[in-house]
Amino acid sequence: MASTSSLTLSQALFSREISRHGSASSSDRVPLSIPTFSALKSTKPPRLSGSAHRARPTHTPTRRQIVRAAVVETLGTAAETALVEKSINTIRFLAIDAVEKANSGHPGLPMGCAPMGHILYDEVMRYNPKNPYWFNRDRFILSAGHGCMLQYALLHLAGYDSVKEEDLKSFRQWESRTPGHPENFETPGVEVTTGPLGQGIANAVGLALAEKHLAARFNKPDSEIVDHYTYVILGDGCQMEGIANEACSLAGHWGLGKLIAFYDDNHISIDGDTEIAFTESVDTRFEGLGWHVIWVKNGNTGYDEIRAAIQEAKAVKDKPTMIKVTTTIGFGSPNKANSYSVHGSALGAKEVEATRSNLGWPYEPFHVPEDVQKHWSRHIPQGASFEAEWNAKFSEYEKKYKEEAAELKAIISGELPAGWEDALPKYTPESPGDATRNLSQQCLNALAKVLPGFLGGSADLASSNMTLLKMYGDFQKNTPEERNLRFGVREHAMGAICNGITLHSTGLIPYCATFFVFTDYMRAAMRISALSEAGVIYVMTHDSIGLGEDGPTHQPIEHLASFRAMPNILMFRPADGNETAGAYKVAVVNRKRPSILALSRQKLPQLPGTSIEGVEKGGYIISDNSSGNKPDVILIGTGSELEIAAKAGDELRKEGKAVRVVSFVSWELFDEQPDAYKESVLPEAVSARVSIEAASTFGWGKIVGSKGKAIGIDRFGASAPAGKIYKEFGITVEAVVAAARELS
Amino acid sequence: MASTSSLTLSQALFSREISRHGSASSSDRVPLSIPTFSALKSTKPPRLSGSAHRARPTHTPTRRQIVRAAVVETLGTAAETALVEKSINTIRFLAIDAVEKANSGHPGLPMGCAPMGHILYDEVMRYNPKNPYWFNRDRFILSAGHGCMLQYALLHLAGYDSVKEEDLKSFRQWESRTPGHPENFETPGVEVTTGPLGQGIANAVGLALAEKHLAARFNKPDSEIVDHYTYVILGDGCQMEGIANEACSLAGHWGLGKLIAFYDDNHISIDGDTEIAFTESVDTRFEGLGWHVIWVKNGNTGYDEIRAAIQEAKAVKDKPTMIKVTTTIGFGSPNKANSYSVHGSALGAKEVEATRSNLGWPYEPFHVPEDVQKHWSRHIPQGASFEAEWNAKFSEYEKKYKEEAAELKAIISGELPAGWEDALPKYTPESPGDATRNLSQQCLNALAKVLPGFLGGSADLASSNMTLLKMYGDFQKNTPEERNLRFGVREHAMGAICNGITLHSTGLIPYCATFFVFTDYMRAAMRISALSEAGVIYVMTHDSIGLGEDGPTHQPIEHLASFRAMPNILMFRPADGNETAGAYKVAVVNRKRPSILALSRQKLPQLPGTSIEGVEKGGYIISDNSSGNKPDVILIGTGSELEIAAKAGDELRKEGKAVRVVSFVSWELFDEQPDAYKESVLPEAVSARVSIEAASTFGWGKIVGSKGKAIGIDRFGASAPAGKIYKEFGITVEAVVAAARELS
Repeated sequence: MASTSSLTLSQALFSREISRHGSASSSDRVPLSIPTFSALKSTKPPRLSGSAHRARPTHTPTRRQIVRAAVVETLGTAAETALVEKSINTIRFLAIDAVEKANSGHPGLPMGCAPMGHILYDEVMRYNPKNPYWFNRDRFILSAGHGCMLQYALLHLAGYDSVKEEDLKSFRQWESRTPGHPENFETPGVEVTTGPLGQGIANAVGLALAEKHLAARFNKPDSEIVDHYTYVILGDGCQMEGIANEACSLAGHWGLGKLIAFYDDNHISIDGDTEIAFTESVDTRFEGLGWHVIWVKNGNTGYDEIRAAIQEAKAVKDKPTMIKVTTTIGFGSPNKANSYSVHGSALGAKEVEATRSNLGWPYEPFHVPEDVQKHWSRHIPQGASFEAEWNAKFSEYEKKYKEEAAELKAIISGELPAGWEDALPKYTPESPGDATRNLSQQCLNALAKVLPGFLGGSADLASSNMTLLKMYGDFQKNTPEERNLRFGVREHAMGAICNGITLHSTGLIPYCATFFVFTDYMRAAMRISALSEAGVIYVMTHDSIGLGEDGPTHQPIEHLASFRAMPNILMFRPADGNETAGAYKVAVVNRKRPSILALSRQKLPQLPGTSIEGVEKGGYIISDNSSGNKPDVILIGTGSELEIAAKAGDELRKEGKAVRVVSFVSWELFDEQPDAYKESVLPEAVSARVSIEAASTFGWGKIVGSKGKAIGIDRFGASAPAGKIYKEFGITVEAVVAAARELS
Repeated sequence: MASTSSLTLSQALFSREISRHGSASSSDRVPLSIPTFSALKSTKPPRLSGSAHRARPTHTPTRRQIVRAAVVETLGTAAETALVEKSINTIRFLAIDAVEKANSGHPGLPMGCAPMGHILYDEVMRYNPKNPYWFNRDRFILSAGHGCMLQYALLHLAGYDSVKEEDLKSFRQWESRTPGHPENFETPGVEVTTGPLGQGIANAVGLALAEKHLAARFNKPDSEIVDHYTYVILGDGCQMEGIANEACSLAGHWGLGKLIAFYDDNHISIDGDTEIAFTESVDTRFEGLGWHVIWVKNGNTGYDEIRAAIQEAKAVKDKPTMIKVTTTIGFGSPNKANSYSVHGSALGAKEVEATRSNLGWPYEPFHVPEDVQKHWSRHIPQGASFEAEWNAKFSEYEKKYKEEAAELKAIISGELPAGWEDALPKYTPESPGDATRNLSQQCLNALAKVLPGFLGGSADLASSNMTLLKMYGDFQKNTPEERNLRFGVREHAMGAICNGITLHSTGLIPYCATFFVFTDYMRAAMRISALSEAGVIYVMTHDSIGLGEDGPTHQPIEHLASFRAMPNILMFRPADGNETAGAYKVAVVNRKRPSILALSRQKLPQLPGTSIEGVEKGGYIISDNSSGNKPDVILIGTGSELEIAAKAGDELRKEGKAVRVVSFVSWELFDEQPDAYKESVLPEAVSARVSIEAASTFGWGKIVGSKGKAIGIDRFGASAPAGKIYKEFGITVEAVVAAARELS
């Protein structure tokens, strides 16, 4: 563990985090500012007699709560209210102007949600604009990602370097830092990648889970070193998505009291009034899900209502809170407000003018009035002092709790303990054969011992996926320090929650599990893992017809191909113990690239020739009796079929053939190898190639070439004992031998 | 329209329906029995003073309701109750014995749900065992599909030919009609394919929607020719899945009063007590969703409670009903009941014996006691008479309402009106260019005029997907005769609901729409379309980086490949008007194979050489200046990139090259062509091949061969105007020309 001081820790993290996938040169775009620590005193003193008029907390506030509450209630006078209004209109017009300039985007949500956005970023949230990765910051997620101009405007006002005026002016343009939906890998200050509806609220559940877990593990009676809120804005669209219900059911179950979601209840979706498709009582549903529910009836101008709701939400500590905020989409636009036409299109020059006139806005496009700018300017020093305070607190903590501090540091930084990989189990051909799902459990349990941020679970299949960490209990409402997550049958939320967990802290390494075929339920979340550089480990068992009797609904066929085609995700199909361990080794190291492990239900032998090092290359030779890189035939297998390839190789060698057997455990990793290595495994001159995989042959054409043969399954599976299906489907040694004879 | 008599109509349907995909010879396995019509009188007379003790309907029952209610309340005496109990235990032991023999399966649910299963199939539902496809039957869906032995036992007792004793004995075996989860294409009497949790309840919403829609269109004051219920059993697992919430929100919104769902509330899922992950109030949530909720506290022996709940559910006509039935999983097993160990494993010989003794069951495995058999035997004549009655009613209807009867017949039989395809729009190169999403709308509206069962909609993107049928209004609670479905932002439920709609009646042809990238949200439902032979048409617009500014979260990359790898689904990427029309032609004809149309947001030209006939072959030449089937180079494109390929062809021809340009609009259809045709398009001797597609190159290796070049996008997209991204990503005429020059 590096012994950097706690002050430089977060700075180091910042400079580490701002890399951007697909672009090596972007780190120079975000200057690394060292926070100044002199401005702490600018925080205004508590004034509990503020203007909030809704229900008060029913308990005596502690010191910390008073400090937090103060931030909520600092603005009371008429002048202050006028400035708030002006700030809110600034947000609205930044959004209007940027969408107008791009002639593309969604102005409606930012116009309607500007009040809650303002209150959150200006009055409530604790963050440091000059270090968007300060560990203890409050997290904000715009689940309704199409309204991203809201967040860009807020980041701009708050002083984030990632969103300067020129960034607003290049909204939705090539290589800008203000893409069409919020992307954490493009814009520091954006926590996760949203846009596909429902993902953000589920990510937020993951972020809040991470906070609760880390707080339970690391907080001490004398030091709440982990302590932040997670705020979300979600819209009608998010509310309709099943993933949101899954995630919110878990949030209620887990009692994530520091999760506060704002539901932008504007009654408009792209197709028009929500009356046409969405008439359920969201409030009642959320009560059923175990949330505290508050309704802010006037989200357009009821600033104090919003403030009071936040206070109330914070006072409820054992439940997440949903604040339903009734707003007018496109508020301020005289002719388009409250209609779908303002949802996803620029207002148009004429309506922009009408809105300027309606809201009394005399300024040029993109202008931030001086008093607004001045008002927001305090966030830079204030943020620096939040971080400095926390750093000082961490120094104290470190002195008293050396071990915990080191562990927390590792979780924050993502630094892996030296020699961690030695913990991975090793196998020889003499080791007992086993299903790779069981071998996977050995790896999971080995890793959990050495990786402080390793945690995870299954979507109600722990005993089939073999994913329980035996030395830990269940993460539950009252045992949040534990590491076994119980997701219930909620695959989609599971994936998105894991995205949130790992994007909370680089050293949190979540794994999650279900049957491989049910990746179909969570594919949208897995794609976001890949896109947003969230290194989730997907433990996917029952990976083929080898699962047998459950039949075609449960047997994956096209799934390997479907993930091999997905960018920035590693698809592993390990064949035995060494390959399973190798897959975990690569998966753990790849914090910015998710991994999928397809694992067998059925028992497999430990094969000679497999190795962790081989897995790291993606494709490698496990046995070969040829010389001069000129085998008569190359047999290529993955996972449970590598054994078949190996046996076929033995058969063919008995006939005197020079046979190379290749494991193709991860196509992506093989693709990344130098050409010379690739040629050493699959020499261009050898066209006699046979692949075998109990799955779709789609994609194998490129590997086996025009003259080779791909043995696989291009139909749905069947319900029967596994051995019978293998035989009937021709996934056999005989088939490989016959194909090889024909080709060589 | 064929003028078969109404009596032979349903019989003809039956013989048509029993084909099985992947097996041409299976129709001989289910003998076609002609119903006998003499047994109508065996129906017992109404006895409204029956034993139900729960809330009564608050309205005066009509004659039809009395008849239905009678079926519910026929069993009252002690002897009758004993027989009911015996029948229920028969169901339990058939499940126990089958799972035991297979040593695989889920006995717990059938043991717990046997009472509701018995009451449904023996007392409540109207069906004809000898014609499982009788149109007006009540539908039953086992959403908790793992408990399929419940349904197999019930079908067996009821006299379905698909589940004889030998079928029970070959449970989960190769080529049996009793696979590990219920599959409509294997087992007549099973309506849909379930197992992946949450799908079944969503299918049921589709079935109930279909009934409500057809009833509204075809019922007359003097003839309720469409009139059935849809029953579902779902478990805790289904309840946790997001898709279930999506579908149930819509069911509430649409007021599907004839949908009655039994929630098997047994508190056990695979990982143990639901306390560990599922503590929400399901009742409250369903009230929020607009359902009527009833709680049967004793689902194990409270038969009258169950009966009364069904009566109450039927009396509530404007809302779907959820009957929460608290049961004991594995009821009757002295040592395993109420535990996860009975969920998904055979009881084991010892516990089977203990259960036999506990429930006083002296019989051999698979034995149906004579009195139970005798009791159930009435369903064959009764079912025949139900159908005969309906057929007679239909004859009357046909006399009075000739046109409607013909239309309904077409919907039931799936027969397409002669010459329907002439309605498809035709285009020439001179026709104005347009986005294929707009051309798609022309097709949809043209088809809706000629196809009586054509209906569909979008997941809140109707105005972007261009899917509104202009001559129809919205299907809503009070306008169920209309054909525009408004799914809200609920992609997953949308797909599964469409599966239900088309599996209700072959002539119902549902289409559904969203952005192509959001197939990730509904992939599990789409896979069930493919597996269960549900010919849904998926209208997927915004099919590439061509959508521009919305960025990588919205830009599909791997999606074409991912569906090309999926069995039994047609993936189309049409290039212009003719190809869009061609894709619709094939999609409409393929009632047992779903189709996906990937359509552009951006405007495309009408290309010379494209044709409907070409599309029917999957891949075809659109231009060629070579002779002797020996072009210098073959350029292959799909969709929006076919234009690029065509332009590159023109360039290269100017240089004197012999260039063939091929549209590869559907890989699956091309694969099905004879070798000679394939050779005529892609001659083996020509290795200079360049493909271009704004998507992952995964899979193209097989088409372009080892020496060809695939131009595509093997990374995530970007947020910028479309033209800019195409250029930056190298999806250009120049790139194709350069590659072709290099190869030829």
